[in-house]
Amino acid sequence: MAPSAPTPAYRRLSVEERRSQLLAAALGLFAHRAPEEVSLDDVAEAAGVSRPLVYRYFPGGKQQLYEAALRSAAEELQHCFDEPRTGPLLPRLSRALDRYLAFVDQHDAGFSALLQGGSVVETSRTSAIVDGVRRAAAEHILSHLQVASPGPRLRMTVRMWITAVEAASLIWLDEDKQPPADELRDWLVEQFVAVLGVTAARDPQTASVIADMSATADGP
Amino acid sequence: MAPSAPTPAYRRLSVEERRSQLLAAALGLFAHRAPEEVSLDDVAEAAGVSRPLVYRYFPGGKQQLYEAALRSAAEELQHCFDEPRTGPLLPRLSRALDRYLAFVDQHDAGFSALLQGGSVVETSRTSAIVDGVRRAAAEHILSHLQVASPGPRLRMTVRMWITAVEAASLIWLDEDKQPPADELRDWLVEQFVAVLGVTAARDPQTASVIADMSATADGP
Repeated sequence: MAPSAPTPAYRRLSVEERRSQLLAAALGLFAHRAPEEVSLDDVAEAAGVSRPLVYRYFPGGKQQLYEAALRSAAEELQHCFDEPRTGPLLPRLSRALDRYLAFVDQHDAGFSALLQGGSVVETSRTSAIVDGVRRAAAEHILSHLQVASPGPRLRMTVRMWITAVEAASLIWLDEDKQPPADELRDWLVEQFVAVLGVTAARDPQTASVIADMSATADGP
Repeated sequence: MAPSAPTPAYRRLSVEERRSQLLAAALGLFAHRAPEEVSLDDVAEAAGVSRPLVYRYFPGGKQQLYEAALRSAAEELQHCFDEPRTGPLLPRLSRALDRYLAFVDQHDAGFSALLQGGSVVETSRTSAIVDGVRRAAAEHILSHLQVASPGPRLRMTVRMWITAVEAASLIWLDEDKQPPADELRDWLVEQFVAVLGVTAARDPQTASVIADMSATADGP
């Protein structure tokens, strides 16, 4: 309490620094617990600040903090998809999946709670954030496939695979992260090739994607 | 208004009949509109009754009506999976998918709103109902595959495929129900065979499922 001995958490931070600090504390909590199990007091305690200070930065309380944390997590997740457009395609996909699965591993409880739905903090805004990530993932994949204007069958195949990956991640978390991440990754890549192969029989555009993949030593 | 000319909707119904009538009216509205766009007045009007009467049967108002309608739709959907356990497997899957796609077609807007999430009527209860349908679909498929105790790889493959089917349905509704339902059905069955094939290379149990399918003239 003595002014000569301030606790480190109470040192003067800029508005932006303080906001980031609160957000990091919230993200840390929301990553490993269902939103129902995180209170504003928990966030204040984790950040080493008072509850009124949290409210000063996030007047909308827990809902606002949750959405800000989700936005920040969504950005981090989208960085997982960054991958140079060089070299064979499937190793690129493998590397992106490695980063994605590491993200899922690090945000386990929050990831499950978010995608299982029905949470009190879920709104059309949070759904839109999640959908934005799905769309970004699909656009990344399609751009790596180097198809000028992907048709409905190719797009649908990619989006179905992304949903299947999401389902696999949830089941993986449910089953104590079994099989090991690298095995899951290979399995998901093989499924990608398989479902593209199925679509190729119905769609010339997808067939030419497969042909290109084989030509660049990506073949199954 | 004359007692000699009651409107048909106001004839005396038993409690159970009245409840069913209100539920049918609600289901009809929730099937084709987002829940946000359905009011209790709409339900009362569709059923030809007064708003207070709706409240007498559903004191929880719109939320209670929505959940009751969802439960009733979930039951109807689960009937789509009923299929005798005789004959080759893939035609059984095709027939169940035909019924499922007809259900999706008939409940289009409600189906999209429900699965896209973030709706005000979404709660942990509504999520549990939807999850129950997914689980039932997986159990049906696994029981048709006649595997005594399906291992994690086979289970995960089936659940991933179910999620992919769900994603395909949403995209299909988004794209004005293109491709035609029978083409979509065949495509989904082919994907099922393809992803099982991928898993078979990693899992002897799945490999023997594929062998059985080929033996009963199901082959790709």
